[in-house]
Amino acid sequence: MDEVLADPLSKFIELYNRDYDVPLDLVLEPGNEIYHHVPEHANNKWFDYINEKGFFRDLPVIEGSVEAVRKLQENHDVYIVSAAMEFRNSLEDKLDWLAEHFPFISWKNIIFCGDKIVNVDVMIDDRIKNFQGFNGRKLLFSSPHNLLLTGYERVDTWQQVLDKLL
Amino acid sequence: MDEVLADPLSKFIELYNRDYDVPLDLVLEPGNEIYHHVPEHANNKWFDYINEKGFFRDLPVIEGSVEAVRKLQENHDVYIVSAAMEFRNSLEDKLDWLAEHFPFISWKNIIFCGDKIVNVDVMIDDRIKNFQGFNGRKLLFSSPHNLLLTGYERVDTWQQVLDKLL
Repeated sequence: MDEVLADPLSKFIELYNRDYDVPLDLVLEPGNEIYHHVPEHANNKWFDYINEKGFFRDLPVIEGSVEAVRKLQENHDVYIVSAAMEFRNSLEDKLDWLAEHFPFISWKNIIFCGDKIVNVDVMIDDRIKNFQGFNGRKLLFSSPHNLLLTGYERVDTWQQVLDKLL
Repeated sequence: MDEVLADPLSKFIELYNRDYDVPLDLVLEPGNEIYHHVPEHANNKWFDYINEKGFFRDLPVIEGSVEAVRKLQENHDVYIVSAAMEFRNSLEDKLDWLAEHFPFISWKNIIFCGDKIVNVDVMIDDRIKNFQGFNGRKLLFSSPHNLLLTGYERVDTWQQVLDKLL
């Protein structure tokens, strides 16, 4: 979900600016996680925020994702698989967020987990750790933190996903 | 989780007796779901109760499950896979319940889903619908509703699971 369907980075920046009244650079350098761009005095803010109730409830939708998933669903069984289990307070928020933005996805096709040990043909993910042990086709969805990685089939946009899978 | 690790049936009976002050027969006939045993006037109570916050938080633990899972974990990667996604209000309760009774299970090994499309070698489940499309070894964990089913490798207790898998 995060950085593929939902955009937690811009929400973080909004909260940071609210709390510190200092603009935070929106442009993440390739290879960096957002916490690399946070001043030292606020190093733990990222983790504080994402553990708060409500953080994941109103994230912006990644451009093109709703229409793309709807189109994929016409020809494929689409599952939303989120490594949400680390964050207890994200579970209801993520489910409600999906109900709002992806109402055409049944609860049967939603998976909150830790390890993504799912038996599927294609995995679209921004984290290569989720590709470990997965034998299907892997599409690395571009996000600042993974831009320096090579050797993966990469997609920069949802249109590119559709071009490859439809 | 339900009817394999946790016991929702006795919790239901407790709530029913609280609300109706009428004892409900504890012994489910083989093949029956609990709602087959509820008088007509309370037909929807089962679904009302399991949709309430808190229902899944204090369920009794199925006998022998904690020690058995701990033993299995010594030799296997054990995942707890619950078809919880149908019940939004169960998610936090189920996670908290696991943290209390199975604290040795990492969040990485917990999966809340609809369809159980997990890539594992052995599945222990009380519902044969969860075996659909699963190619590994299936152990049907006995529960009243499944007692009339034949043609499955059946386990009645967690000791029997250990005897088969260790």
